[in-house]
Formats: sequence, structure tokens, C-alpha cells
Amino acid sequence: MEKKHLSDIAIAQAADIKHINSIAAKIGLSEDDLEHYGKYKAKLPLRLINQAKIEKSNLILVTAMTPTPAGEGKTTTSIGLTEGLNKIGKKTIVVLREPSLGPVFGIKGGAAGGGYSQVIPMEDINLHFTGDFSAIEKANNLLSALLDNNIQSRSNNLNIDPRTIAWKRVMDMNDRALRQITIGLGGTANGIPREDGFNITPASEVMAILCMAVSFADLKKRLGDIFVGYTFDKQPVFARDLKAENAMAILLKDAIQPNLVQTLEGNPAIIHGGPFANIAQGTNTIIATKMGLSLADYVVTEAGFGADLGAEKFLDIKCVSAGLKPKAVVLVATIRALRHHGGAKPEEYNTPSVERVEKGFANLAKHIENIKKFGISPLVTINAFPSDTEEEVKFIQQHCEAMGVQAVVADGWADGGAGMTNLAEALVKVVEADESNFKPLYDWKSPIREKIETIAKEIYGADKVDFSKKAQLQMNKMEKLGFGEFPICMAKTQKSLSDNEFLRGRPTNFDVGVREFEFAAGAGFIIPILGQMMRMPGLPAVPASEGMSIDDDGVISGLS
Amino acid sequence: MEKKHLSDIAIAQAADIKHINSIAAKIGLSEDDLEHYGKYKAKLPLRLINQAKIEKSNLILVTAMTPTPAGEGKTTTSIGLTEGLNKIGKKTIVVLREPSLGPVFGIKGGAAGGGYSQVIPMEDINLHFTGDFSAIEKANNLLSALLDNNIQSRSNNLNIDPRTIAWKRVMDMNDRALRQITIGLGGTANGIPREDGFNITPASEVMAILCMAVSFADLKKRLGDIFVGYTFDKQPVFARDLKAENAMAILLKDAIQPNLVQTLEGNPAIIHGGPFANIAQGTNTIIATKMGLSLADYVVTEAGFGADLGAEKFLDIKCVSAGLKPKAVVLVATIRALRHHGGAKPEEYNTPSVERVEKGFANLAKHIENIKKFGISPLVTINAFPSDTEEEVKFIQQHCEAMGVQAVVADGWADGGAGMTNLAEALVKVVEADESNFKPLYDWKSPIREKIETIAKEIYGADKVDFSKKAQLQMNKMEKLGFGEFPICMAKTQKSLSDNEFLRGRPTNFDVGVREFEFAAGAGFIIPILGQMMRMPGLPAVPASEGMSIDDDGVISGLS
Repeated sequence: MEKKHLSDIAIAQAADIKHINSIAAKIGLSEDDLEHYGKYKAKLPLRLINQAKIEKSNLILVTAMTPTPAGEGKTTTSIGLTEGLNKIGKKTIVVLREPSLGPVFGIKGGAAGGGYSQVIPMEDINLHFTGDFSAIEKANNLLSALLDNNIQSRSNNLNIDPRTIAWKRVMDMNDRALRQITIGLGGTANGIPREDGFNITPASEVMAILCMAVSFADLKKRLGDIFVGYTFDKQPVFARDLKAENAMAILLKDAIQPNLVQTLEGNPAIIHGGPFANIAQGTNTIIATKMGLSLADYVVTEAGFGADLGAEKFLDIKCVSAGLKPKAVVLVATIRALRHHGGAKPEEYNTPSVERVEKGFANLAKHIENIKKFGISPLVTINAFPSDTEEEVKFIQQHCEAMGVQAVVADGWADGGAGMTNLAEALVKVVEADESNFKPLYDWKSPIREKIETIAKEIYGADKVDFSKKAQLQMNKMEKLGFGEFPICMAKTQKSLSDNEFLRGRPTNFDVGVREFEFAAGAGFIIPILGQMMRMPGLPAVPASEGMSIDDDGVISGLS
Repeated sequence: MEKKHLSDIAIAQAADIKHINSIAAKIGLSEDDLEHYGKYKAKLPLRLINQAKIEKSNLILVTAMTPTPAGEGKTTTSIGLTEGLNKIGKKTIVVLREPSLGPVFGIKGGAAGGGYSQVIPMEDINLHFTGDFSAIEKANNLLSALLDNNIQSRSNNLNIDPRTIAWKRVMDMNDRALRQITIGLGGTANGIPREDGFNITPASEVMAILCMAVSFADLKKRLGDIFVGYTFDKQPVFARDLKAENAMAILLKDAIQPNLVQTLEGNPAIIHGGPFANIAQGTNTIIATKMGLSLADYVVTEAGFGADLGAEKFLDIKCVSAGLKPKAVVLVATIRALRHHGGAKPEEYNTPSVERVEKGFANLAKHIENIKKFGISPLVTINAFPSDTEEEVKFIQQHCEAMGVQAVVADGWADGGAGMTNLAEALVKVVEADESNFKPLYDWKSPIREKIETIAKEIYGADKVDFSKKAQLQMNKMEKLGFGEFPICMAKTQKSLSDNEFLRGRPTNFDVGVREFEFAAGAGFIIPILGQMMRMPGLPAVPASEGMSIDDDGVISGLS
């Protein structure tokens, strides 16, 4: 089809975009319910959240097998599935994360779906949107400024040991030169010199907190609970000790409200929050999910990376914390990714090979088994690519069937909702059968070590977990600080079920190692670090920004 | 009056705020003309600028005598005068700068007027507003990231000498620890180590550019013209060499549109851009001024610091660049400031003293003389304070009259528009007499040295200008680079007419020294540095943020 050759931005710009009032009307909202940001974006006040409606609505999680670097299309599938569900008469909202500016100007591009399954206005969503990321960045950096100011001040001084500061500044930019810096140079007027660094804004704990908060009061409390470092007497220091939480909350008063936009086919989309999926929970705000459930019969949402990271955190952290029970899980597979796990090199991803698909199926099978451990039988969807062959598709469908799950080919990228009605119908059958019996994998009250071992063995397939000396000391410290009952937010490579990115398929006979911990006392989780985690990406030699242009009327091209 | 004791935020929150549509209707705009940001803020599309209407409208500049550290109330006077003009039947818009977040959480507080002369919603205007500052910050820092990325990259490398980089990162925060830093530490993956620093966002040249641009095309061109440093071969490098200007302009596509809000009395206010007044032009965007003139019969605007800095730059840089001709200049004086220039210590500012006022009058007199040099006879206004005495007021009025100018007492802070009708009526007489014959002080085409000498001698009252060896070399370099015909944007203390902050009143028998130059090739001006200029403020020992709170319904207190 001709149209498949258009760029994402060209498709988005050609869309018949409707005033946000008419999108809101579809879910029973009037103009007065909205805080408009131009004609096509609006914020939704928290008073629209309705617990009775939440309990009657159906929450659908879209997750994926272990991905190739290009990703397997969770966002595109989520948007397309929403179009499909609306097409077959189910009132559905898609609830997604907000994109970070860093990748937009770097290498990956935006995160507003692709092809004929996108959310619009795509440019705005990928740029400043409604200012949420900026507000988070400012709240994070206000805490940093207050912290360095306290160290500098002779009055009001909390005796903070600058060597122990765990709180970094953030900037929503791919800027490797800021990863490791020294600040406070230049003499007495410029503060106390110390090592510091910037993370990218989605890696801020303020972002994680915004996504975990259930109310404005809860947000403020969590901001006060942020751990920033120790005093010289080895006492923990929290943001509340710096009297920072009110001013930080003031900066977030608008950011806490979810954003309403639309899909290409004019269905409602809520986009809110965007925490990193490697060191944080990687899914949109609890408030946005609840807002969606309050306003529609079906809510389709997604969580970052493969199911070993995204789905596990979504189910064990977010759902437990928010009291949510997903009715179904859609597991996205691509034949490209199956070939990859079957041994294909990147240049062979588009070369059909039933043999490789057969070998790679072990990865998908493990994710199917994993989802079942949460009491939910997943629905597999094969996100279609032009190089897929009928033989390969059949192989997957047969082997899924043998595991008791259905696999449906879907093509939202090329065909929007029309390419997704099969999946939508299959999904409605799953939901209406009402066989989901969600239970988390572990009890938050278990010891830290036990929780980590459960995830590593049950989900990753590891034989055992090695804890470094440092990690063991930190576990003791955390139990003493009262963080023992926090859930676990694993920081692990997304490229393998194991903690070794080179092990494809379904690794067996391996251990994982916890090098150290971080704790996000405000967000309310413990982060075991299982390898090097990137928190501030760099730009490529030719950044994506070089290929962008904007004409005198403000029309953008080259944004993807 | 009881009401005078309320805090600014309490007055603002008690206001009968109107939907922005009804404010827009007053100036002939329909809902469709607006880009709404909630119910009380909107952006105005550039197509509403109308040259024919600009030429028929009346531009009024509010400036001030040399201020005390608290400022003499230019913004409050501008807002109050707008209320007064509307009260007497003149369709008037006030056009102001946007506040920076740094001072809001630091020591100074916001910049949305005060008492009963404020613009609202005060909290929003003082916080993220419509995201303009964040957009400017991102555009500035994208250029930094592209620059450090280019230094790091082996392909695509421009051979930039890291030691010569003149472009700094910015953050809209009072954060002294970021003034002087080293970046790129930690090995080959993290870039090339070098010295750097953050300025506060209003000090960004991107801010200055946004304020000088007359169209989106002009904005993009100016962004490309930013000078960033030299190659190892001593060739200048501009932002366009890094292919940065399109991506930067993309980030500014919404920020270029002026923001419409309202005064406490429901009159239209346009707030747009906020460049530093010490190292930049210190006045709102040219586009906002033109927008105001296109939509009203009177536009009241102000420029940072005293008339020696604010008015001079407004008239010589902004008006010449934009082809604007002010019809009147209102010169704000306070009796407190006159006492200060007459020798009062801060604790004596509220102690009546005709003797000190008489001595301090020399400062006001010099500013009156200066404004006349631009072909405009100013209207003096005495911004009322409770400690003012009738004798002091009379002294000023008589001595102003002797200089051929009228001095009107005004009390917009306590009484809003009702306290400003006298001034409004006096102003209308001045405008209707049509005796303004604006001409700039110097010709942009004159040599750099001559332009600087003209300002220093004519406006400051200096005997001569000393140029350091470095400054002399830089002047040659600038002439070679083609920057010789740029106007001059003086960087000088605001505390004195001279470059020595301790010289009060009307200093005589002094020289000024140009230590070095900066050039803002994108904004289009040359900056002679006449002392230490603060570009990144610090927080006080007890930051203003500590006294702020926000309740569970999002109601803020303690913001001033």
C-alpha cells in the first residue's frame, strides 16, 4: 500500500485532528471539565477519578517478549488495539507514557506510536507537551539547589556530608558531558566543591513519585520522603529535612493532572508520566490509569521493555500499590524478534527462517509461562512486518495453542484500527470469559532477599542470586531504615531474560548478581542494580536534530 | 485601609478572575484566536500583529530613577497605569516581562506587580506559566549538548577548541553550585573534560533572541547566528555550523507566541519574554509589544532597572530595531529612593527628610535630562509609600516643574486603577499634545568605541571611557567579524549612574572602564562589561521556598 511509505510525522500531520472538546465528549466530559492546552490537548482534573467506575472497567496490559534494539511495537500495538476495540463498539481509552526529549533529538525518535497507530498532535506530544517533564525537572533541581545551599550555609545547616549525597540533578536531554561533573568550584561564593552528575529527567525519582502518587497529598508526602544522603553523624537526610516538599509540590500542581489527546482515528488517549523502565517502574502514572478506568470500559496500557521487566514491575509494584486488577495481558511478539532469539544477526532480521523462529520461540514461551504465574493467561499478538511468512506465523500460532494461548496477527501500523479488529475481538472474548485471577508474584512483606530471589528464579529462570558484600550491607541498612517492606524494582538489562545481555532466547543454568542497591524512599521501592545502568544517554555522531527542520509557518519535518 | 495588609497572593487569589475569552473579547478577539492554557491564560498567534494598527497606537514606556535594592515599582506602576487608563476610557494593554523561577524560590519573589496592581493568575505567571522559559532553557541546552557532542565525535568534527567555548548551559534556578563546574569527566565515554558553568535562564542569549525576533523566520536566523567559540584554527563557530538552528526553533515554536492574561481589574495584559537587564536588553519581546499595539490604543510597557540601563537599551536597541516610536515616557520615582540618594541608610528609608530628598533629587533630575536627549519629555510619577510627607512631595513637584516636567503622585499599589486616574489623565494629555519626537542617542553605524563613549558621557555623565587592552583587541576582532554595526547593550551596575555601585545621586568627575566584551551575535548586540555581572544567583540561608505551602486542593500560600 502506498500509504505505508509515508513518515510518521507526515501521517500525523495529514490526520483529520479534532478539537479536544469533541474527544472529551466521547467519554462524557464537557468543555468545563478540561484545562485546555491549545485546541488539541487538555489536562483532566483529579476529581474525575471515580472508584466505583474503576472497579467496573477492564484494564488491559500490553507487554512484550524480550525485544530487539528497535523494540517490538508495544506502543503501536496499544494504540492500534484501542482503535480496534472502539471499532467493534467497546468504549476504550489508551493510557501511555510521555516521551522524553532526549531521544527525540538523539537517535530513537519520539514515542507516540507509529504508522497508522499514533497519538496526535505528535509534534507536541514529542516536544514540550503540557510541561510535565519540565515541572519534574524543576522540582528535582530545586531539591538539588536547596541541598547545596544547605551545605554552603552557616546558619540552618543540617551537617550533611557532601560525599554521601545520593541526589542528582536532571536534564531532559541526551548530554553525556553532564554524566560526571564537579560543581561548586571557584571559591567561597560558589558553594562547596563536590562530585555530581546529571541524569536524564525520566530517571528522576520525582518522575517515579509522580507515577506512584494516588493523590496530591500522597505526592507531597512522597516528595518529603526522598532520601538525599547522610549527615556526618551517619543519620539519613530526607527532602522533608530540607523543607523542600511544599515548594516541590507547588511546581508539580499542574503536572499531576493527566493529559488528554487523541489517536489518529479520533479516540481518546491519556498520556501521563514517563519513568525510565531500567531503574524505575517504566509505566504511566497510577492517576492516569485510574482516570482512564473512570472514563471508559476498556483501558489499554503498556509498560517498558519485555515482560520480565515491564510486566513484572507493573503487576508487582503498580497494581499492588494501586489496588488494580488487570483483566488481560497482551504479549507482543514479532517474527523479527523470534528470528533474533533464534540466532539471526541484525542484517538477517528480515530474512524468513522457520528454523530460527522455532529456536527463538523459547523466549516467547518463557514469557507466556511467566504471565501465567500472575494468574493471567496472556493473549499473544504477532505485530506484523512485511517480511513475515505464513509458515512462520503458523508455527507460532500452533505452538502458542499447544501452551493454551491464542496468537493473533495484528497490523495496526499499516492499517490502524482496521488491522486490529481481530485482536480486539479475541481480547473481548478473553475479558468476557473473566478467567483472570491476578495475584502478585511475591508478598511485599517478605524479606528483601527473598523477594529478589523470587523474581530472579521465577521470572528470569536463574538458579540463584549472588549478593555482593556491599549489597548485603545495604540490605541490612535498608531494613533498619524501615524500607524492608518496599517492593522490588529490578534494574537489569532488557536485552536478555538474564542479567547478561548476550544470552538470547531462554537462558538456563545461570546466576544473577546484585552489585548494589539504590532506594527510592519517596517512590517507595528498592532498586537492586544488576549491571551498568545508563541514566544519561549520549547523542550519536549525527544527532537526529540535524535532520529536522521547521518552516516559517511552524510546520515541522524530520521529527520521528 | 484594611486591605493594604493582605499579601500579594491573598489579593490575587481573592480576585474575581474572568475566563480569558472574556478578556480577549475586550480587544476584539474571539475564542478561535486563542491557544488556551487553562481557563485564564492563552497564547496569541503572530497573525494578529497588524502594522497599520501599530502605527496608530500609542506606546508608553515606564522607567525609573536609579533604584534601591527593593526596586521602585515599575511593574506595579505599569499595571496600575493600565487600570487607570482603562478607567478613563482608553483601551489599554500592559505588556510585561515573564518572571524567572530562580528569584521566586530565592529571595526576591515573583514579578507580577504588587498590592492592588497585579496580573493574574499570579501563581501560574510566577511558576511555569505557559512553558516559555522551559522551552528557552531546552533550546539553549540542546545547543550545548550538540557542541559537546561535536567535540567528542570523531566523524562530523568541526575542530572546535574546547578552551574557547563561549556558550554556557542554563537553568532557571538560583543555584550557585553550578556557576563554575567541570564537565565531561569519567573517561572516554563521557566526553572531553572542560570547564563550564550554568547561567540562569533569563541570561541565555536564546532569551535575548526571542525578545529581539520579529518573526519566526527571523528567530531561526538569529539562532543560527549564535557565536559559540573558535576552532583550533581560530575561525569563529556559529550555531548554524552545528546545524542547530532548526531543532532549536522547533523547541521555540510555541514560545514565540505572546501570552495573554489579565490585570486584577480585568484588563488585558500581555506577558512575554524575560531577558536579564544587566547583560541583555531587559525588556519583553518585540513581538509582544507589537501585538499589544495591534490590539489596543495604548500600550504600557517597562524595561529593567533605572532609565540609564532600561530606558537607554529600550530606546536605542529595541525601538530602533523594531521601528517603534514611544509617545511618552513615565519616569517612576519614590521618596524612599530620593532619600537613599540623599544619603539615607536602608533603616532610614522610611524616615521623612526634605533635606535628603532635596539632595537625592539630583539623581532624578539627571534621568529627566537623559530622557529629553531622546526627544521625549518624561512624565514623572511618585509611587506613593505610607511614609511620604506632603512637604517632600511638593518639593519634587516644584523642582520637576522647574525642569518643565509634571510629577504626579500615584497609588496603584493600595488602590489599583482608582489610585492611578490622575496619572492616566496627565499621560493622555501628554500623548494628545503629540510632542514626542523620538530619536535614538546614537547611530548604529558609528564605530563601537564612539557608541560606547556616547552612552557613557551623555547618559551616565562620565568624563571618559577606559578600554582595557583585552577590550581593545576584542573591538578589532568584532569589527572584523562584521559585528561593528550592532548596537551597544551595556552591562553595568544598576545601583549607580556610574559603574561604581557606591556612587549615589548624580555622580560627576568619574571615568568608566570597559574590562572586556561579550557579543550576542544572534540577539544582535555587543555587550561591554563594566564590572562583575551576576548570571547565576544563589539562594539565601533561608530560601523563600521554605515558607511556601500548598494544601491538598492545590491552594498555594507563601508565594510572593
